[in-house]
Amino acid sequence: MEKRVAVLQGDGIGPEVTEAAVRVLEVVARRFNHNFHFNYGSIGGAAIDEFNHPLPEETIALCESSDAILLGAVGGPKWDQNPSELRPEKGLLAIRKHFDLFANLRPVKAVPSLLHASPLKEEVVQAVDMMIVRELTGGLYFGEPSRKTDKAAVDTLVYTREEIERIVEKAFELARLRRGKVTSVDKANVLESSKLWREIVDEKRKSYPDIEVEHQLVDSAAMKLITNPGAFDVIVTENMFGDILSDEASVITGSLGLLPSASVRSDGFGLYEPVHGSAPDVAGKGIANPAATILSTAMMLRYSFGLETEAATIEKAIDTVFEDGHYTADLSGGSDRVLSTKEWTDKVIEELD
Amino acid sequence: MEKRVAVLQGDGIGPEVTEAAVRVLEVVARRFNHNFHFNYGSIGGAAIDEFNHPLPEETIALCESSDAILLGAVGGPKWDQNPSELRPEKGLLAIRKHFDLFANLRPVKAVPSLLHASPLKEEVVQAVDMMIVRELTGGLYFGEPSRKTDKAAVDTLVYTREEIERIVEKAFELARLRRGKVTSVDKANVLESSKLWREIVDEKRKSYPDIEVEHQLVDSAAMKLITNPGAFDVIVTENMFGDILSDEASVITGSLGLLPSASVRSDGFGLYEPVHGSAPDVAGKGIANPAATILSTAMMLRYSFGLETEAATIEKAIDTVFEDGHYTADLSGGSDRVLSTKEWTDKVIEELD
Ligand SMILES: CC(C)[C@H](C(=O)O)[C@@H](O)C(=O)O
Ligand SMILES: CC(C)[C@H](C(=O)O)[C@@H](O)C(=O)O
Repeated sequence: MEKRVAVLQGDGIGPEVTEAAVRVLEVVARRFNHNFHFNYGSIGGAAIDEFNHPLPEETIALCESSDAILLGAVGGPKWDQNPSELRPEKGLLAIRKHFDLFANLRPVKAVPSLLHASPLKEEVVQAVDMMIVRELTGGLYFGEPSRKTDKAAVDTLVYTREEIERIVEKAFELARLRRGKVTSVDKANVLESSKLWREIVDEKRKSYPDIEVEHQLVDSAAMKLITNPGAFDVIVTENMFGDILSDEASVITGSLGLLPSASVRSDGFGLYEPVHGSAPDVAGKGIANPAATILSTAMMLRYSFGLETEAATIEKAIDTVFEDGHYTADLSGGSDRVLSTKEWTDKVIEELD
Repeated sequence: MEKRVAVLQGDGIGPEVTEAAVRVLEVVARRFNHNFHFNYGSIGGAAIDEFNHPLPEETIALCESSDAILLGAVGGPKWDQNPSELRPEKGLLAIRKHFDLFANLRPVKAVPSLLHASPLKEEVVQAVDMMIVRELTGGLYFGEPSRKTDKAAVDTLVYTREEIERIVEKAFELARLRRGKVTSVDKANVLESSKLWREIVDEKRKSYPDIEVEHQLVDSAAMKLITNPGAFDVIVTENMFGDILSDEASVITGSLGLLPSASVRSDGFGLYEPVHGSAPDVAGKGIANPAATILSTAMMLRYSFGLETEAATIEKAIDTVFEDGHYTADLSGGSDRVLSTKEWTDKVIEELD
């Protein structure tokens, strides 16, 4: 298989972790006889510095001629005081919208050897294995009017039937490959958009009689993510609720540094990035944990390239490296057997080779 | 002092827990030489059954002639399939709006003897002592347009300067009586309404130089409530974010059953209710935990009647009863020294008398 990957390293530890992920992908290509071409482009703060735009035309063109996008992270204190249009995260919002990446997939799974780092009790989180499916190109993030004067401000939460249908279908399809349960999260006791959302879920479920469906209000979902997170399989929700709940879910197992994400559209094209941010405090030191970015490339292989075996092989290799007790500084818990980004990636590559 | 209290018992365990709270208020009145008059009205499912409306005119009139409202809880499976206008929670939304109860105050404090019931590790939650200040009459809950067709739906997140100013002032005033810190939660990197919110917080803080202020994005606040909840003092946020975050916060200490709330306007008039719901499964058995409702009356004494000593006396009595090991069934952890609603309330009254 021959594929072109656009690599947008971004800011902070972005270059280090994407570098590690590209090395892993190269090994996978060799072992499984694929050809991956990597082409680099700018986004976020780095792009603001170089092109005075968080998502330059050059980058869009590069991504358009690619089969998938690998992103490091964007943002940092350097650009925090910039005007709104020159902020790194605008690049992220713009790339999602431009490429219609409407489905944000965020798996959260308990890693047994890391549960000690969880703020929750081990018995509450040990069974966690969920996938949050967040609608990413609609709702309050992009609805019009969205404006402000000195006296008032307005944002608009709007969804069309088509926008809801495609994300709900995505959730059902994913649930089929997992434990067969979908929790649809809304605020149907207050919001009209949530009522339409709930109706569409109830229509679609008829085509998926094998899937168990439950509706949950967003406030009660925020509680259950803490009191009984193991009960969730696939959660599907609109953009703003998904932003809040997926970040809430990302800290419950204590392995935020390991969480990958995918933002995809219907034809399989997608953007893959770690959930953690650009971590400016450790940038450039060669100590960042590349696991989340490497796991994001596994999602790329699975969802954009259909290479399930290759994806699972990467995931397995990472599990083994952790089980063998190899950690980067963030997970080492003060022990002195701490590996650098490069050394830890070498261990993963040894497992793969 | 002479005060009229409207008691809206509502559904499920509502009648039992408000009954207990009224008994406590009567003892406080006697001990401190006040005169509290209690008048009963209908709301929620009970009002739908009797008046075919979740908030009948009679109830509004009763509340208008009162100095404060004590509410039990609304809702239950009986009304779950009702059309939207005949649902119990519509009564709650309508009473908030009618009386302009714009400030929802929800304190969350770790109770040492109950920390074992928390899903979080003891060391993460033991220092929790926060007050969430949620804007309650604006934003997505009430903005127009709010409508839906078969093809699309829209809700509107709108705030005026005045609406934001008064809730932000409320938060600053409350912080002064506490540890002097305000965390303002918004999504200013995406929403125009959040940008106005943040500007107003930055204006207002100039009048409160003694208060420490931080801005936090809602997604990161959802994480920090789990990873470091002890760092919060006062959190102030808009209606929808407040709904989600206050419910998230309500489960972290394991004492959801004890959490009170107040919904007040500027002149001191307010509605007081436990955070827990109507618990239809235990209703009518005389075993419900009345602590949250009794603590809500302490908030009433403090915020609507200015009776700080009386409020603190109730809170102290409840602390003592827990420290002495007296629990209702929900908190007994399977021991056989379980008190009924009435017996437990008797213990509180013994402490007060
Ligand atoms: C940076 C920000 C605009 C973005 C979002 O809110 O979508 C981020 O929080 C995320 O979840 O990817
Ligand atoms: C019942 C519902 C409309 C209400 C709300 O969302 O405000 C409830 O969740 C609350 O927080 O009091």
